Amino acid sequence: MMNYTKAASSQAFKNKKLLFRQLFEKDSSTYTYLLADVAHPDKPALLIDPVDKTVDRDLSLVKELGLKLIYAINTHVHADHVTGTGLIKTKVPSVKSIISKASKSKADLLIEAGDKIHFGDLFLEVRATPGHTLGCVTYVTGDGSDQPQPRMAFTGDALLIRGCGRTDFQGGSAHQLYQSVHSQIFSLPKETLIYPAHDYRGFTVSTVGEETQYNPRLTKDEEMFKSIMENLNLPYPKMIDIAVPSNMVCGLQDLSVKPVDASSN
Amino acid sequence: MMNYTKAASSQAFKNKKLLFRQLFEKDSSTYTYLLADVAHPDKPALLIDPVDKTVDRDLSLVKELGLKLIYAINTHVHADHVTGTGLIKTKVPSVKSIISKASKSKADLLIEAGDKIHFGDLFLEVRATPGHTLGCVTYVTGDGSDQPQPRMAFTGDALLIRGCGRTDFQGGSAHQLYQSVHSQIFSLPKETLIYPAHDYRGFTVSTVGEETQYNPRLTKDEEMFKSIMENLNLPYPKMIDIAVPSNMVCGLQDLSVKPVDASSN
Repeated sequence: MMNYTKAASSQAFKNKKLLFRQLFEKDSSTYTYLLADVAHPDKPALLIDPVDKTVDRDLSLVKELGLKLIYAINTHVHADHVTGTGLIKTKVPSVKSIISKASKSKADLLIEAGDKIHFGDLFLEVRATPGHTLGCVTYVTGDGSDQPQPRMAFTGDALLIRGCGRTDFQGGSAHQLYQSVHSQIFSLPKETLIYPAHDYRGFTVSTVGEETQYNPRLTKDEEMFKSIMENLNLPYPKMIDIAVPSNMVCGLQDLSVKPVDASSN
Repeated sequence: MMNYTKAASSQAFKNKKLLFRQLFEKDSSTYTYLLADVAHPDKPALLIDPVDKTVDRDLSLVKELGLKLIYAINTHVHADHVTGTGLIKTKVPSVKSIISKASKSKADLLIEAGDKIHFGDLFLEVRATPGHTLGCVTYVTGDGSDQPQPRMAFTGDALLIRGCGRTDFQGGSAHQLYQSVHSQIFSLPKETLIYPAHDYRGFTVSTVGEETQYNPRLTKDEEMFKSIMENLNLPYPKMIDIAVPSNMVCGLQDLSVKPVDASSN
């Protein structure tokens, strides 16, 4: 039994500025997160990891809540679903898409470790957490008494609740993932809320305190972790050949460029 | 666009005592809620609407968080899944099951409108919200400055996010449901968080303010609402013949009582 009960009183945000919604896409078990500064006159908002098939749901909610969506952000190039960032831009052209420079993908803004993404008086801090893919980042809400407390970490597939993303595709590396999680996520305060890109068992949130004590993979030493990751025997990701090329360009292939094969037929 | 942005800064709980977790069961799209008073030395906890097949997950989490589960509670006799309350009692015999007296079901404690369910210094208040079934209740966190703010309403199937439960089985009544939601739920402060028993589109939470403005059924007048409910043309609930008899007895048929037919063979 853990002693992080104080840490575990999750979602006890002290910040009245933050509007926060967690949204779920069932086919890929993906979480999309909506954050907004509702104390700011513009009510600027951002979406983290939107999915193409739930874009209409997400934009309806943004409209109903009276928010102004300014950013559509990915934690990494997903292999299991097509991102909604490109589709969002076709529907709300003022939105800027964001992904890491290390992902080698196209987006309006390419971010790196240490960058800050401001929305109103709130911001997300970028931490590089490669290992599931080369370009994975974790977005952490701002540090400071005027920012939400406890902090919230949007970990993508780097750290899942009692799990982690696979490391056998897309430049994955068990060594790198282990170092990323320990140095960039487990180093956050124990009460920090963990919001992953997926959950397959119905959990919605965890904390750094919980994962440092109960994560069955990342509580092991690095050699044991590498051995676990090498022996997962997971099937080839069924969406990877469609999703990855598409997600390198915000989920929308550039339809104005005809494929060479098609023009030669 | 709504003006409830302050109301909508959801999950901005001011109460440091409350540990809160929302859990999802994918097959029936059911939400189970874990609440605990982590400021109390015993860390007393309760589960609202546990599902039989996720009992082990829920009890593991309770143990990891160092909580003492005291109540397993249902909002109503579910027709779409088997409740986990009986199974929980076999695994943690000190847990008391709770359901409404109006449900005509068996449980350790049968509650009525106005009753309070205490866990540590926190409590849930019972509101009768029949209409989906005869015995539906809504549990609302306590009123008072020492209780979580905004308040949280666990509405079962009475009020869903941008929807509501069907009214064509189990003593359902569109008239009664309309009156229940308007008098018992929409009368709560606009910032009250709505946590339903189900969501089929990936929403996790709403507010009274949002539902009074955007619920496509319950924002209509009662005649229109009744017409909508009469014309849903929903299929017969596939689990109802298994789930309802089972849920009348906390999800566990009493195996010690032999059926009459069996003894006469």
